[in-house]
Amino acid sequence: MELAMIGLGRMGANMAERLLRGGHQVHGFDPGAPAREQAASRGILIAPTLEATIAALPSPRVVWMMVPADVVDSTLDSLLPLLAPGDTVIDGGNSNYKLSQRRGERLAQAGLHYVDCGTSGGVWGLAEGYSLMIGGEAAAVEVLTPIFQTLAPAADRGWGRVGPGGAGHFTKMIHNGIEYGMMQAFAEGFAIMQRKQEFGMDLQQVADIWRDGSVVRSWLLDLTADALRKNPGMAGIAPYVEDSGEGRWTVAEAIDLNVSAPVITMSLLERLRSREDDSFADKLLAAMRNEFGGHKIKQG
Amino acid sequence: MELAMIGLGRMGANMAERLLRGGHQVHGFDPGAPAREQAASRGILIAPTLEATIAALPSPRVVWMMVPADVVDSTLDSLLPLLAPGDTVIDGGNSNYKLSQRRGERLAQAGLHYVDCGTSGGVWGLAEGYSLMIGGEAAAVEVLTPIFQTLAPAADRGWGRVGPGGAGHFTKMIHNGIEYGMMQAFAEGFAIMQRKQEFGMDLQQVADIWRDGSVVRSWLLDLTADALRKNPGMAGIAPYVEDSGEGRWTVAEAIDLNVSAPVITMSLLERLRSREDDSFADKLLAAMRNEFGGHKIKQG
Amino acid sequence: MELAMIGLGRMGANMAERLLRGGHQVHGFDPGAPAREQAASRGILIAPTLEATIAALPSPRVVWMMVPADVVDSTLDSLLPLLAPGDTVIDGGNSNYKLSQRRGERLAQAGLHYVDCGTSGGVWGLAEGYSLMIGGEAAAVEVLTPIFQTLAPAADRGWGRVGPGGAGHFTKMIHNGIEYGMMQAFAEGFAIMQRKQEFGMDLQQVADIWRDGSVVRSWLLDLTADALRKNPGMAGIAPYVEDSGEGRWTVAEAIDLNVSAPVITMSLLERLRSREDDSFADKLLAAMRNEFGGHKIKQG
Amino acid sequence: MELAMIGLGRMGANMAERLLRGGHQVHGFDPGAPAREQAASRGILIAPTLEATIAALPSPRVVWMMVPADVVDSTLDSLLPLLAPGDTVIDGGNSNYKLSQRRGERLAQAGLHYVDCGTSGGVWGLAEGYSLMIGGEAAAVEVLTPIFQTLAPAADRGWGRVGPGGAGHFTKMIHNGIEYGMMQAFAEGFAIMQRKQEFGMDLQQVADIWRDGSVVRSWLLDLTADALRKNPGMAGIAPYVEDSGEGRWTVAEAIDLNVSAPVITMSLLERLRSREDDSFADKLLAAMRNEFGGHKIKQG
Repeated sequence: MELAMIGLGRMGANMAERLLRGGHQVHGFDPGAPAREQAASRGILIAPTLEATIAALPSPRVVWMMVPADVVDSTLDSLLPLLAPGDTVIDGGNSNYKLSQRRGERLAQAGLHYVDCGTSGGVWGLAEGYSLMIGGEAAAVEVLTPIFQTLAPAADRGWGRVGPGGAGHFTKMIHNGIEYGMMQAFAEGFAIMQRKQEFGMDLQQVADIWRDGSVVRSWLLDLTADALRKNPGMAGIAPYVEDSGEGRWTVAEAIDLNVSAPVITMSLLERLRSREDDSFADKLLAAMRNEFGGHKIKQG
Repeated sequence: MELAMIGLGRMGANMAERLLRGGHQVHGFDPGAPAREQAASRGILIAPTLEATIAALPSPRVVWMMVPADVVDSTLDSLLPLLAPGDTVIDGGNSNYKLSQRRGERLAQAGLHYVDCGTSGGVWGLAEGYSLMIGGEAAAVEVLTPIFQTLAPAADRGWGRVGPGGAGHFTKMIHNGIEYGMMQAFAEGFAIMQRKQEFGMDLQQVADIWRDGSVVRSWLLDLTADALRKNPGMAGIAPYVEDSGEGRWTVAEAIDLNVSAPVITMSLLERLRSREDDSFADKLLAAMRNEFGGHKIKQG
Repeated sequence: MELAMIGLGRMGANMAERLLRGGHQVHGFDPGAPAREQAASRGILIAPTLEATIAALPSPRVVWMMVPADVVDSTLDSLLPLLAPGDTVIDGGNSNYKLSQRRGERLAQAGLHYVDCGTSGGVWGLAEGYSLMIGGEAAAVEVLTPIFQTLAPAADRGWGRVGPGGAGHFTKMIHNGIEYGMMQAFAEGFAIMQRKQEFGMDLQQVADIWRDGSVVRSWLLDLTADALRKNPGMAGIAPYVEDSGEGRWTVAEAIDLNVSAPVITMSLLERLRSREDDSFADKLLAAMRNEFGGHKIKQG
Repeated sequence: MELAMIGLGRMGANMAERLLRGGHQVHGFDPGAPAREQAASRGILIAPTLEATIAALPSPRVVWMMVPADVVDSTLDSLLPLLAPGDTVIDGGNSNYKLSQRRGERLAQAGLHYVDCGTSGGVWGLAEGYSLMIGGEAAAVEVLTPIFQTLAPAADRGWGRVGPGGAGHFTKMIHNGIEYGMMQAFAEGFAIMQRKQEFGMDLQQVADIWRDGSVVRSWLLDLTADALRKNPGMAGIAPYVEDSGEGRWTVAEAIDLNVSAPVITMSLLERLRSREDDSFADKLLAAMRNEFGGHKIKQG
C-alpha cells in the first residue's frame, strides 16, 4: 500500500522502514529537518512540507501518525484541511483512549476514518515486528490489513482489531499497566537477591537460568538478563523511574470501573516514589515518632 | 505496693516515677551508673547491684522489667537465681508475644508467675498515664491491680487483662501495627497538601482545625499539629523512618493467620523504602525501560 | 445572622438546628415536603418554595447549600436567578474541589461570592460541633464568621479559612483520604485479633483499653469501641463497604501531584475489593495455576 | 547415570521419565502402591521398599527427593540409615531454603552431600524441560551434571549452580515471588478489560495478539491465552487462589532484608483476600461508617 508516516522519531522511522522492507510505498514527514534527512537516507519518500507529503498520496489517502501524545491534536488540526472524505488517519502512538474516542467522532463528522492502534515492541519492533491492538470501524481496519500484516511479527499473528474506536488504545493502556506490574515484580525479586549477600549470587546467571523452562520466562526477563550482562551492578544508573501516562490511566480506569488492581497500582506508586528523594511524608513520620516516643530523628 | 523496676531508661524511669507519685515503694536497677544516679535523684530506691535490689524486696516479690527486647532473656537469666516460687516478673517492654509465651512457660516451671504487659504512651505516659494491655494468669494479674491502676490514666480505665500469657504483647503488637497505618495515613495526607502549592496552605492550621469536631481527630493528630508548629517545613529532618519490630511482627502474624492487611503492610514497607536511597530495584527498572524502549536513563 | 439552609437532609437539618440553637435566624428549604415539615417542627423557618425562601432573606443574602454532590449544579441553576450581586452562596457538601473552583468563577462573574466549606463531623456534629475547612475570598469568609463560630465545636477552634476558592473542599478531600486510611488500619488490626482465636480476646475491651493513654486513641477508636459494644461479632453486617468519592479523588490527586500515597490508595482499593464477590482476576489466577502446575481449581 | 527418584507424584514421575528418556537408569520409590505401579508402567525400575530401592543403587549413590515439603525431614530420617559417606541426596522440591541449609549441615556431619535444587516448569517440564536452580558444594553439583543436562530444556541452558547450600531453594523462592507478581499483573489487566463492557472485547484474542511482538509476551501469557480459550468466562471456577509457601517466604525474606517489595507483597495479600468471603475488617468498616455518618449498612 501507499501511505504517509507523520512523525519520524525512533518509533515512526523504524515502522516506516519495516513497511518499506515489506514492499509498501512510504512517504514520511517530520517537523524536524534532521529527522527528515535521516529518514530519506533510509529510503523513505520525503517531501519538504506536510502539505506536499499529503498531496503525494493517492486517494483515498492513508496517514499514520506516530507523534508524541501531546501534539496529536495539533497534528490533526494541520492534517484535516489537507484530507478528503474517505481518507483514513491512524494514531499509532500512546494516546489516552478517551481522546481517541473523541477524535474518532471529530473525524467521522468530516467523513474521515479514524483508527487507533496501540503499538508495542519498542526499539526491537523494526527487526521483530510490532504487536498491534487496533480500534475503529471494522471496514476501515479491514482496508489497512496489508499494513498491519507487515508491521506485525507475522501476517497472521501479533495484530488484530479488538473493538470500536478507542478500544485499541484502551488495550494498549492495559498492556502497559500489566508491563509495569511485571517489571516491578522482576525488579523486586532481583533486588532481594542482590541484598542477600551471603549467597554471593550472580544475578545475570540466575536470569539466564530462568530464561529456559521456568514459569517466569518472558521477553522482559530476556531484556533483564541483557541489562544485567551489560551492567551487573547497575553502576551509574540513578534509581529514578519515569512513567509515561498509560500506567496512571490504567490505575484511574480500574478505579472508575471499581476493579481493585493493587499490583498495577503499587507498581505505579513505586515509580512516583523513586522520584522523591526528599519525601515530606517520611520527614513527618520521623517527627511524629519523636513526638510520642522521643525516638531520635536522623538529621537531613 | 513494693516492687523493683529493672531498666531505668526513658520508659522505665518515668514509670517508676509515676508509681512513686502514686504511693508505691519503688526499687530500681539499671546496669548503667548514670541511669541509676538519675533515678536516685528522682526518689527511686537504688541499690548498687541487681542482687541487692531483689534482696530488698518483700516476699512474694514483684519485679517489673523495662529493658530492650534483645536483653530480656539475659535479664531473666540473671533474675531467676534470685527469685523464689510465688514471685512475679512482668515484662513491660516490646517483646515478641511468642517469646513471652515461651518465657512464661519457663518461669512457670520454676514456680514463678510471668505477666506480659504491652505498654503504650511513650514520653507522655508519666504525665498522662499509660495504656496497659496485660497477658498472664488471671490470679497473678489480679494481685498487681494497684500497680496497673497507678500506671494507667485512671484506676478504672486504660488497662486490662486481655488474655493468657502472650496476649498482652500480642495486643501491643497489633496496637503498633495500627499506629503505623494511622501515622502513614496522616503523613500521606499532609504530603499531598504540601505538594499542592497553588493553595499555599498552612499545614499546621489544617491540623489544628481537624483537632476539633473532625472524624480524624486523634492524639496522633495532636502530635502532628505540634510537630508542624515547631517545624512547619520539617527542616533538618531526614526522610528516614525507623521501625522497631512490632510492625513487622504484625505483618508476619497477619500472613500466618491468612488475613490480608494491606494498609498495615504498606505502612511498614514505606518505612523500609524510606531507608533506601539507592534502590537496586529502581535502577533495574530504569535499565529495563532503556532496553525495550530506548528510554533515557538518569545518571546517578 | 440570618441565612437559608438549602437541603434539609440528615446533615443540613442538623446544621440548621445547631445554628438555631446558636441564636441565628435560619430559613430552610428542601424539595421534599416531609423534610420541610420535620425541619419546621424543629423551629426552622420554612417557606413552600425556593423562591419564597430566598425572598425572605435580608440583603446581602447568605445561602448555605447542603445537598448531594450531584445536584449542586442544578441547585445553583435554580438559585442564581433569585440572587443579586453581593450575595454569598456556601457549598457545605462534599463537592470535588475542582468543580468548586469552577463554580466560584461562575458566581464571581455574576457578582456573587462563593465559599466552599468542607464539613466533617457526621451525625455527631449537632451535639459536638462540626470541623469546617473553608475556601474562598478572605473578605467573603470574614463576613460569615458568626455562622462558623456557631457550627464549629468552639468559637475559636475547629474551623478556619484554609485558602482561596476550592481549598476548603480540597482540604476536606484530603481529610477523608486520611480517614479511609485510619479506618482501614483499625479494621485490619481488629480483624487480626479476631482471627487469633487461641487468645479468646474481647475486642471491645481492647478498644476500650486503648481509648485512654495509648498512641492510637482517637475519635474513630471511640466509635469502633461503640460499634463493637453494640455488635461484638458484627452479626448481620455484610462485608461490603461503600465509598463516597473523596477517597478516589484523593488517590487521583496524589498521582497527579506525583506523590506516592500507598496507604490511602490501598484503603480505597480494599473498599472496591469488598464489593467484589466474584472476582474475575482471582478466577483467572486459579486457572493459570492449573495451567502451569496442574493445581486443583475450586469449583464456584 | 544411575539414581533413585523418591516420590513419584506428578512432578517426580515426570522427572523420572524425562531422565529415562535421556538414557539414565532410574529407580523409583513412592509410599503409595498406585504411584509405584504407574511409574513401573512408564519404565521406571521399582522395588517394593525404600530399603530395596536404595540397595539397588551403585555406590556412591545418588538419591533425588521429590516429596511434599512437609515430609522432607521424615524422608531424610528414613534415608539416612541406608546411605553411606560419599552418597548424595538432592531435594528437588519446594523446601524453605533455611531448612535446606540446616539439612545440608546435618548430612555433612554424616559425610553425605546435600544438594538443594529449585525446580520450575510444572506439568510442562516433561516435554519442555525444567529450569533448575542448584545450591550446594561445587564438587557435589559437578558430579550430577549429566542429570541436570537431561532435566533442563537443553544441556547448556536452563540450569546452573547458583551458590552454596540453600542458594538453590532461595532462588526458587524468589522465582515464585516474581511469578506471583506477574500472575497478579496479568489477572488485574484482564479483569479491567473484562469489566469494560462497552468495548465488548474478546480477552482471548487480546492475549493472542500480545503473544507476538509485545513487551508482555511470556510463557504465563501463553498459558493465560490457553486458559481463556478453554473457558472465556471462567465459568465454574471459584475466585479462590491458593498459595503454596514460597510467596510468603519471599515476603518475609524481603522484610528481613529491609527491601520494600510492594508488588510481590500485594500479590500474596490478594491471594489471602481471595479466600475471605466474610471479612471481619470490611464488616467493621461498614459499622464505623454507620457510627460516624449514619451511612446505611448492607445486611449480610
